[in-house]
Amino acid sequence: MFREKIKVLDCTIRDGGLINNHAFDDRFVREVYKALSAAGVDYMEIGYKNSKKLFAGQEFGKWKFCDDEDIKKIIDGVPSKTKLSVMVDVGRVDVDDIKPKKNSPVDMIRVACYIKEIDKAIFLINNFAEKGYETTVNIMAISKALDNELNEALHQLEEESKAKVIYIVDSFGSLYQETTEFLIKKAKSILKTKEVGMHAHNNQQLAFGNTIEAIIHDANYVDGTIYGLGRAAGNCPLELLLGFLKNPKYDIRPILDVIAKEFIPLREKLEWGYVIPYAIAGMLNEHPRAAMALRNSPEKDHYREFYEKATAREEQA
Amino acid sequence: MFREKIKVLDCTIRDGGLINNHAFDDRFVREVYKALSAAGVDYMEIGYKNSKKLFAGQEFGKWKFCDDEDIKKIIDGVPSKTKLSVMVDVGRVDVDDIKPKKNSPVDMIRVACYIKEIDKAIFLINNFAEKGYETTVNIMAISKALDNELNEALHQLEEESKAKVIYIVDSFGSLYQETTEFLIKKAKSILKTKEVGMHAHNNQQLAFGNTIEAIIHDANYVDGTIYGLGRAAGNCPLELLLGFLKNPKYDIRPILDVIAKEFIPLREKLEWGYVIPYAIAGMLNEHPRAAMALRNSPEKDHYREFYEKATAREEQA
Repeated sequence: MFREKIKVLDCTIRDGGLINNHAFDDRFVREVYKALSAAGVDYMEIGYKNSKKLFAGQEFGKWKFCDDEDIKKIIDGVPSKTKLSVMVDVGRVDVDDIKPKKNSPVDMIRVACYIKEIDKAIFLINNFAEKGYETTVNIMAISKALDNELNEALHQLEEESKAKVIYIVDSFGSLYQETTEFLIKKAKSILKTKEVGMHAHNNQQLAFGNTIEAIIHDANYVDGTIYGLGRAAGNCPLELLLGFLKNPKYDIRPILDVIAKEFIPLREKLEWGYVIPYAIAGMLNEHPRAAMALRNSPEKDHYREFYEKATAREEQA
Repeated sequence: MFREKIKVLDCTIRDGGLINNHAFDDRFVREVYKALSAAGVDYMEIGYKNSKKLFAGQEFGKWKFCDDEDIKKIIDGVPSKTKLSVMVDVGRVDVDDIKPKKNSPVDMIRVACYIKEIDKAIFLINNFAEKGYETTVNIMAISKALDNELNEALHQLEEESKAKVIYIVDSFGSLYQETTEFLIKKAKSILKTKEVGMHAHNNQQLAFGNTIEAIIHDANYVDGTIYGLGRAAGNCPLELLLGFLKNPKYDIRPILDVIAKEFIPLREKLEWGYVIPYAIAGMLNEHPRAAMALRNSPEKDHYREFYEKATAREEQA
């Protein structure tokens, strides 16, 4: 697959940060940045831009806040054409923390929101766009979105927002290809002036397959993470994506190197990837929260009980 | 997805046997049979039916030969509707070893062959069909098949063979969905009196996605293995397949149990699944042989060197 418009965004540090409270050390983050730069990856998402006022006094690593000074220490002296992205969660950012693009090492700001927060997301995204950033809106938990609400949200994004890209986010890793095709086609049909992106989770080993499906139906922005690192089941493995895309600007070899040197040892300390409770959560279209709690308990391999609890009917009318 | 005609075949013991010389002990094989039976899986492939004359004196477990007496010890006393399958490799079977179906616990015989062996496969399959077995031909290394040769083979299978099902086998785990769609559609269009099957390998985490793709395009026979066990990157995880198929006859819970009790401990001893050299072999459409040798060497995580060697151009005209 070679389509020049396709852009690859690596969110290893940002999504991976969800399993270690954003506490990757500078050396590791710099190794990732060097590998992505050498591989020709288009964007690196380095963390969240959360307000320190909201998370004051709590134990988080620096990539939950992404101060410019911290970012500069990572990129300083590394030859690179890779642009930098940060993610913002609706309700957790102070817009005054975001200075004009010309004074920042950051190129792109991505706003993550649920369907019901779309108005707040548009307010933020327009603010950031006016400050000179490339912008995206990432619609989370798309597998729970009702069709009429999704239609309305996409129309609003097309008509009211300055976002450059709108991402479909399969937060629960529950989409199969047919629904991915349906959602991407719908987004493309409504978002006539914008690009469409795909961010997939790997609960059912479908993150890469669904990303290919999205590309087939003209999504041009695709997310991956090195060795699939990310919360719970993780994400679309970047190395597979680079193997699939035939654009000669990409070189998979620096990614292979950093996997061997950094990610194989890291996997001994942090758990992510194909783990049965995460697969069950994906099949059932549920948030991985309960599965993550299970994996941190002595019952971590009690799959049947987990499945039965997750599928038990509650009394309701 | 609910289509009553879809049949699931589990080949855990057969394909998994390729990583331990078919030496699973009876207790383990019986646990697998009990789980598959309780889960309502349609077929269990228990091993290869190779000629002992050809492999005499060598060190292989009993599931390379599948004597009826050995099979009976596994199934005796277990309530089950699961049919039994054995695989035969062209050139490694003595047809006289195969007795009439009415004297055997085996229900189905699958003949694995490369495109160039199709005439030999048809000879075997017709012999087995005449003896009363359900039969399939599994065309291996389909990702290397030239289009004219594949067309001819499919026409021969349609016109000359008594096989009930023809399988597309992605031996190298190198197919993407688009080629899977192309191959399944081609097979369906030529094989008007037969069913089409899909056997996928998981080098690029696409075994499940490609199996769904095959189902979408009307393949009705699909292979899986418990927890994806199988040579190198392994196969389509059976538990994901059962989570996807909505036929109420399937129950995923016995599979979850056997994964927890048997496969999680086994994975500590045997390697299979998502391992970078297998992913590279898949991307490059190569047999996993070299990657398996690498994983058994001190250079097992030297990914770049492996990639560069695999992609080096040789002098040729």
